[in-house]
Amino acid sequence: MARKVKLAEMTWVEVKAALESGTDTVIVPLGSVEQHSRHLPLITDSANVEWIAVKAAEGTDGVLVAPTVVYGISHNHIDFAGTVTLRTSTLIALLKDIAHSFVKHGFRNIVFLNGHGGNNATVAVAAIELREETGATIANIYTPNLMRNSAKLLESDIEWHADEGETSTALVAIPELVDMSKAVREIPKPRPLFTFTEEALSRSVVDLGLPKTREITTSGTIGDATLATREKGERMMGEAVETLISVIAELREATKASSAR
Amino acid sequence: MARKVKLAEMTWVEVKAALESGTDTVIVPLGSVEQHSRHLPLITDSANVEWIAVKAAEGTDGVLVAPTVVYGISHNHIDFAGTVTLRTSTLIALLKDIAHSFVKHGFRNIVFLNGHGGNNATVAVAAIELREETGATIANIYTPNLMRNSAKLLESDIEWHADEGETSTALVAIPELVDMSKAVREIPKPRPLFTFTEEALSRSVVDLGLPKTREITTSGTIGDATLATREKGERMMGEAVETLISVIAELREATKASSAR
Amino acid sequence: MARKVKLAEMTWVEVKAALESGTDTVIVPLGSVEQHSRHLPLITDSANVEWIAVKAAEGTDGVLVAPTVVYGISHNHIDFAGTVTLRTSTLIALLKDIAHSFVKHGFRNIVFLNGHGGNNATVAVAAIELREETGATIANIYTPNLMRNSAKLLESDIEWHADEGETSTALVAIPELVDMSKAVREIPKPRPLFTFTEEALSRSVVDLGLPKTREITTSGTIGDATLATREKGERMMGEAVETLISVIAELREATKASSAR
Amino acid sequence: MARKVKLAEMTWVEVKAALESGTDTVIVPLGSVEQHSRHLPLITDSANVEWIAVKAAEGTDGVLVAPTVVYGISHNHIDFAGTVTLRTSTLIALLKDIAHSFVKHGFRNIVFLNGHGGNNATVAVAAIELREETGATIANIYTPNLMRNSAKLLESDIEWHADEGETSTALVAIPELVDMSKAVREIPKPRPLFTFTEEALSRSVVDLGLPKTREITTSGTIGDATLATREKGERMMGEAVETLISVIAELREATKASSAR
Amino acid sequence: MARKVKLAEMTWVEVKAALESGTDTVIVPLGSVEQHSRHLPLITDSANVEWIAVKAAEGTDGVLVAPTVVYGISHNHIDFAGTVTLRTSTLIALLKDIAHSFVKHGFRNIVFLNGHGGNNATVAVAAIELREETGATIANIYTPNLMRNSAKLLESDIEWHADEGETSTALVAIPELVDMSKAVREIPKPRPLFTFTEEALSRSVVDLGLPKTREITTSGTIGDATLATREKGERMMGEAVETLISVIAELREATKASSAR
Amino acid sequence: MARKVKLAEMTWVEVKAALESGTDTVIVPLGSVEQHSRHLPLITDSANVEWIAVKAAEGTDGVLVAPTVVYGISHNHIDFAGTVTLRTSTLIALLKDIAHSFVKHGFRNIVFLNGHGGNNATVAVAAIELREETGATIANIYTPNLMRNSAKLLESDIEWHADEGETSTALVAIPELVDMSKAVREIPKPRPLFTFTEEALSRSVVDLGLPKTREITTSGTIGDATLATREKGERMMGEAVETLISVIAELREATKASSAR
Repeated sequence: MARKVKLAEMTWVEVKAALESGTDTVIVPLGSVEQHSRHLPLITDSANVEWIAVKAAEGTDGVLVAPTVVYGISHNHIDFAGTVTLRTSTLIALLKDIAHSFVKHGFRNIVFLNGHGGNNATVAVAAIELREETGATIANIYTPNLMRNSAKLLESDIEWHADEGETSTALVAIPELVDMSKAVREIPKPRPLFTFTEEALSRSVVDLGLPKTREITTSGTIGDATLATREKGERMMGEAVETLISVIAELREATKASSAR
Repeated sequence: MARKVKLAEMTWVEVKAALESGTDTVIVPLGSVEQHSRHLPLITDSANVEWIAVKAAEGTDGVLVAPTVVYGISHNHIDFAGTVTLRTSTLIALLKDIAHSFVKHGFRNIVFLNGHGGNNATVAVAAIELREETGATIANIYTPNLMRNSAKLLESDIEWHADEGETSTALVAIPELVDMSKAVREIPKPRPLFTFTEEALSRSVVDLGLPKTREITTSGTIGDATLATREKGERMMGEAVETLISVIAELREATKASSAR
Repeated sequence: MARKVKLAEMTWVEVKAALESGTDTVIVPLGSVEQHSRHLPLITDSANVEWIAVKAAEGTDGVLVAPTVVYGISHNHIDFAGTVTLRTSTLIALLKDIAHSFVKHGFRNIVFLNGHGGNNATVAVAAIELREETGATIANIYTPNLMRNSAKLLESDIEWHADEGETSTALVAIPELVDMSKAVREIPKPRPLFTFTEEALSRSVVDLGLPKTREITTSGTIGDATLATREKGERMMGEAVETLISVIAELREATKASSAR
Repeated sequence: MARKVKLAEMTWVEVKAALESGTDTVIVPLGSVEQHSRHLPLITDSANVEWIAVKAAEGTDGVLVAPTVVYGISHNHIDFAGTVTLRTSTLIALLKDIAHSFVKHGFRNIVFLNGHGGNNATVAVAAIELREETGATIANIYTPNLMRNSAKLLESDIEWHADEGETSTALVAIPELVDMSKAVREIPKPRPLFTFTEEALSRSVVDLGLPKTREITTSGTIGDATLATREKGERMMGEAVETLISVIAELREATKASSAR
Repeated sequence: MARKVKLAEMTWVEVKAALESGTDTVIVPLGSVEQHSRHLPLITDSANVEWIAVKAAEGTDGVLVAPTVVYGISHNHIDFAGTVTLRTSTLIALLKDIAHSFVKHGFRNIVFLNGHGGNNATVAVAAIELREETGATIANIYTPNLMRNSAKLLESDIEWHADEGETSTALVAIPELVDMSKAVREIPKPRPLFTFTEEALSRSVVDLGLPKTREITTSGTIGDATLATREKGERMMGEAVETLISVIAELREATKASSAR
Repeated sequence: MARKVKLAEMTWVEVKAALESGTDTVIVPLGSVEQHSRHLPLITDSANVEWIAVKAAEGTDGVLVAPTVVYGISHNHIDFAGTVTLRTSTLIALLKDIAHSFVKHGFRNIVFLNGHGGNNATVAVAAIELREETGATIANIYTPNLMRNSAKLLESDIEWHADEGETSTALVAIPELVDMSKAVREIPKPRPLFTFTEEALSRSVVDLGLPKTREITTSGTIGDATLATREKGERMMGEAVETLISVIAELREATKASSAR
């Protein structure tokens, strides 16, 4: 049986024992409550990221997983029913309080594992301040960066939102909530200075923010969700877990080395 | 099969359809990530409150359940490993952003269903401001108030924390996470001006805040968890669900009547 | 002659001498500037609470009374001319600064004596944070809780606002500002889920906030002010003073015992 | 009998009637709770300023006086027992909430009448923002500026704090709280770039803030309180009231003219 | 060649060397980006104040000049194209961060040299808090106070904005950006309780804030810019530099004396 | 002669004329005041970015350049004398106020041109909120992304801070402030999970924040500044200007097209 890794499903006695026997790392997954087209639930981001966090923690030592911060920054999706969005200052405050609590208990590595692109800048700002305020290692990891190789095998022209990749991973994390019969392909017309791929976006010279999804899609999908399969998802999620395990191992070593100086 | 009531497990299309066919109420459950003695997990409050919210929503029409706000105000438990606590301003900001998003989508009744006493004042303050800022009905409900009759059947002298009642309800909501073999009875010595019962506390003339749990207990239990049974839990949870259904029905009528004026 | 108890009417030399000879407690009364019907002034809450604070301080040792925080949270009365309301964050900041100043001078017990129900949650939140930030005892006391026995002798069906009880106490504290010839009886129609009695409200399972007084009354009274008498007021105020003296005595003992540990 | 001018001692009905019959101005007096040497109480500033406000309002039409904001910015006196100091952001928030409430009721002129020099910059900042946020006239008046002629008759070399002038005015406003037998003369040694006179200070080229009173005095007096007399106070207070009446008259005309455009 | 005094044009090695050899003072100039009539650029205030700061620093030892805080509080000019205005809380935060950084490096005297009247109260508030938070000397200097004698030689009735004095000084600091062919004379009609001279304003008994410039002028000038000459500017700027040098010398001595105690 | 493009060196009349004749874009350059090794001044980032902004604005129509926001987020360099760092919340507030002012004047495109990597996340967060609050296009551009081709020609192994590239561009923007005789080569030992190249960093799977420069270098250089030449700088700056001109042209078209819809 897998070791218990969900911190909140443990008693304080178990968490204390873990800390005393070398556990030094807590993953705080971040997702969103936002539209994911007609075939994926609002919780998709949160579910995917939590799945990765738990599997990685189970596959290594010394790592626990905090409850997922499910609400995120989703201004661009707010026109779709059910989407919730936070102010950036709210998310910063929330992450700071959570991290300070864990540092107080003795965790030395706080890993913000973020599954929702809209959160990235806000998480980065929270981390800047947390690094000054605590002596802990504050790591930000964006899940798509954990699955770069397997993502190359995807077939769609565009991978952006509620698409082939995201649907494939959801078929692993929350298959019971995916309705492939409703999956669609929707490719927005190109926008000036904006390309709907992570790759292109990261190479872009200008950041204009995310367009309001409602203005460019009907379904909420940007990409081709019909090409999603559980097999693709397994490859992506597998790579993500494996990469995360290895990154965390290196991270823990680095922190230990730094403390030993 | 029960109707889908967890908003985040629905697609935006399903939420939109629900809103168009009369759904006007969203329950936002609030819990905590805090120590619950040696036999209950940190997530106990959040799990219990979410169970009630979901069952009530399934038992009525027009109600969805938002993802639980699992992190809460837990200063008094922070000395126990794994406990997380927020600043009050953080929780206020978070509740405001969530409620504003739901009001934007057309929900008319926002029900903060709070399962953790430490959150009560903070939720009340958020609600004061939200009532001014939105036209919506903002209702605060504290779950122990939903189970007053069945709570009278409990046998312990003191019902306070990780105790007979809370353990009994956890045996319903998360039986797989309860380890009755570790359940204990621990009754703190009386403190001046402070009685460890909700009843007494609500009648007290002075509020001194909650004592640091670490100073008054070894286990984290205040009460007698050994007396807990699933049967007691079922009576309590059953009453809570029933009462909540009836309160929400009345609430929805009131809002409709008020809008019709 | 009564000992000087109003801190602000003393010189710093007198306050210093008091602190050095055992004074360790300061009462910070909280009221409101809000409508109190046609026969009571806007300052009623503040005047009543200050009266109790001063009499209690005079009746015991070691206690001073700070200037009353007269402005409070009064959103629900704002439609009546002259009412002032603060944002909750403003009142929290104000109480924090006041308490920090007194703790710096050596007061060990800060007693927020609140005479206005609308302030309750906000004071509670300020106290949560103050307890973490200072080592002092922060006590919240709501004045109606100090006069429960005498309040039972009131004759009206409903005791809520600018009513039999409040008018009776004002006849003690500020008789020159009460115009009984304008006192009225006004009983709002019952509202769903809302009962106009403190008792009922504290037992309610749902908190919907206070209704806008303008929507439910013409005068601003909720209750029957015509039944008020000075005798009733004297019983209520007498009980309040006596209870407060005894609570503070117990409080001071508790703090001393705690410090001695 | 003097017309009622203390807003908080009126009923909402009376305030409403006043507003409907031409009252358009509310004075918000600001003071402090801070040391005033061995012979004057902590409340001196607040009492003096309230006295002026009330007399001026009684001597003209159309003006009411709000409850005094007694707590102020007093960092430099905090080493003396009983002194309370606010953060500047707290006082700004408080003044904004008060002013917004009065503007909502129809007051067109909000007069911050400040009797405590330590508040000046903070009141000015609050006013800058309030002028942008409301359409109302926001006037700041510092009481020493209302009594310039009579102040010239004072005999001390230095007029600064708890001194000849301030004691003389207190002998008018709160004679029962002044103990002239404890009045002293204390003249701090000159400090580089700092002169202990309002006059000199206002002509100084550099503002270094107020020195910590504890570092430069024993008593808390800066000046010569022994020279104070009630006659001097009457001249000063008389001039202040007269000047204030005339300023407010001009102010009201200006606002009316501006609205008529 | 003049010693390097612009901190930001130095390397960290040079700044360190300066600190180690007795430099203890940094001037932080504050200006504005706001309309200055038809003949002066938006940057006028910032340019003038920076010129004075640099010349003074060059004329003494131990003083460096930080980059000018060019954006300021300019609500009253916002109706003129290009004007930028900050919230007061933004400027307070900015000054606090800058000062804290310099104090960390060992500067003992932080001189806010403010060339824009609209900033005065806000700078004063920032300084109040900085004095509590740091052990450093925080000095506020408003540049017109440095040139009182030479200003007496100006010929216009009114000196207020983009006028004879300001234009004359700009002819020294930024002659290439002054277009005297566009200079105008514009004297607003007197306003109730408001006189357009610093002198009169500082003696006024009531502060109504600055009127919206657009409402009282066409050009943006208040005064007579046509009378400006470089010679007048040289006298004014010369006096300012000389006075500033002498004030800073005194200031540095005072801080040293205070530290030596 | 080049058209005037520095907004703050223009009069309001000129800015108004520009807006009326098609100017719709303002560049707000962002830099830092932070150590740049022994041979470059603290202002390097600010100077470089301003140079690019001005040249680009001169090379196109319809674009003005606001005063550079010189102070930035520089926690990691704070141990080097003279470095100033802001809290992230301060920079967010500052950018919001500046942008709101420009939008009020009619600018449709606000281009944050950021020359300092430490500001990136904070600028992105400010932009997220500004896009919601204004109808304007808010573009973030990080200058290294404007010179990718020419940067490939650099010879050092590592390009990170005060290095070959940055020194080369400074030799173009501020040659008089560069002292090549002090330029050094300093290559920190590799750190776990951290590579000192923008390229590598942008491909990294984990963001650990920037290490404290003091811990990894002696000089402050990370890279090889000795290889810098003005020729290299001219190629880089030339590419940056050209690319920026073309991006802004596209941006302006996009905004116009969007408004025309």
